[in-house]
Amino acid sequence: MTPMLSDIRALTFDVFGTVVDWRSGVAREAEALLAPKGVSLDWGDFADGWRARYAPAMAQVRKGERPWTVLDDLHRENLVGLLQERGIDGLGDDEVDQLNFAWHRLDPWPDAVEGLIRLKRRFILATLSNGNVALTVNMARRAGLPWDVILGAEVAGAYKPEPQAYDRAVELLRLQPGQVLMTACHTYDLDAAAPRGLRTAYVHRPLEFGPDHADRARPAPGTYDVAADSFTELADKLGC
Amino acid sequence: MTPMLSDIRALTFDVFGTVVDWRSGVAREAEALLAPKGVSLDWGDFADGWRARYAPAMAQVRKGERPWTVLDDLHRENLVGLLQERGIDGLGDDEVDQLNFAWHRLDPWPDAVEGLIRLKRRFILATLSNGNVALTVNMARRAGLPWDVILGAEVAGAYKPEPQAYDRAVELLRLQPGQVLMTACHTYDLDAAAPRGLRTAYVHRPLEFGPDHADRARPAPGTYDVAADSFTELADKLGC
Repeated sequence: MTPMLSDIRALTFDVFGTVVDWRSGVAREAEALLAPKGVSLDWGDFADGWRARYAPAMAQVRKGERPWTVLDDLHRENLVGLLQERGIDGLGDDEVDQLNFAWHRLDPWPDAVEGLIRLKRRFILATLSNGNVALTVNMARRAGLPWDVILGAEVAGAYKPEPQAYDRAVELLRLQPGQVLMTACHTYDLDAAAPRGLRTAYVHRPLEFGPDHADRARPAPGTYDVAADSFTELADKLGC
Repeated sequence: MTPMLSDIRALTFDVFGTVVDWRSGVAREAEALLAPKGVSLDWGDFADGWRARYAPAMAQVRKGERPWTVLDDLHRENLVGLLQERGIDGLGDDEVDQLNFAWHRLDPWPDAVEGLIRLKRRFILATLSNGNVALTVNMARRAGLPWDVILGAEVAGAYKPEPQAYDRAVELLRLQPGQVLMTACHTYDLDAAAPRGLRTAYVHRPLEFGPDHADRARPAPGTYDVAADSFTELADKLGC
């Protein structure tokens, strides 16, 4: 372990993509609800379409074009728009809610729980997701994710990559930024955390966007403080 | 279980006194640091003196007489004042910090961990303490308290019994107030939660203020939605 990393006291985690496989989970849940209604489509593409509406919706909040809105509510609006776009109608409000909560029922990548349990022995484990608190809690209970604390966009009142999202997590942990290791599979997230003083860990998740995009580029070696292909490898590299 | 309680989805917990034995823990830590320096005093009384400064310090924040200040910082100021009052000097800043973090190293009541583990099978478990997030996280890691989420004063920006402290917890859980059961050994806390719509569970903790005050009065039966003598009895009453 490099001396730089010996100061680390807490790991903060991006969740969607980094900890859990959102695409497979959303596709599975969409198929389970919609296929019995005679809907037939590419469920992975449906998940991609839902996800594609995520960044523009958050951008409206970030730019102040609309008041603070939690991700559950953005997801639901985006789902309603997507269903309309795909010509899927006739769902009741309760069914739309049930499908919307697909994001609460995502499975972790195979290495995630084991890696987190090892990392937790030595470090405080915090979520730093754009998912709202209730979503993150429900997901953790179902998936067995052993978080010490749920931080992130909702407790900051700001979506990543806004600086306030990272700063508020550091403040709530009562640590120096350099004692916190931001862990994500998205370079934009790490690139936003680094200027706030956080250390950075890149975890490669080639299947996030499905098997057709498994050739996802890796950042050049040395771009981040640490890089790993799994949470178990990250635990190895951090001496856990 | 009464029908009223069948709606409960989450339990929110007061921590100091309800979950952990602050008086014995603070007394033990004070003795460990100060006795080797030749200080001799009634360590339980020292803990009581520190605790007595807690409500007035928070009241200044609640009344807006000073800006938001986390409990770790209020505790430290109160400790400095108490040491001065008792004529104890010569401690370095690091030693004062170490003693201040006694509040991070408190032991749970003997039934607490077992009860929480049982309750967690069925309910979301959230802290709703005036302790700040880092304090509550450090305590939980040391004591094995299986919280799903750390809520409370710091994420609300308001100390109990301010209404905002309870309202913010309900909001972050995305529940209706009547789906949340506030659990505390202090009647003032439950009496503040009830008007916000939360359900209330009283847990009797006769030793909170030491063996000389073990005759602490119990509220009249029926004052709160549920009453128990331990977290394991609470789990029994909630069908866990």
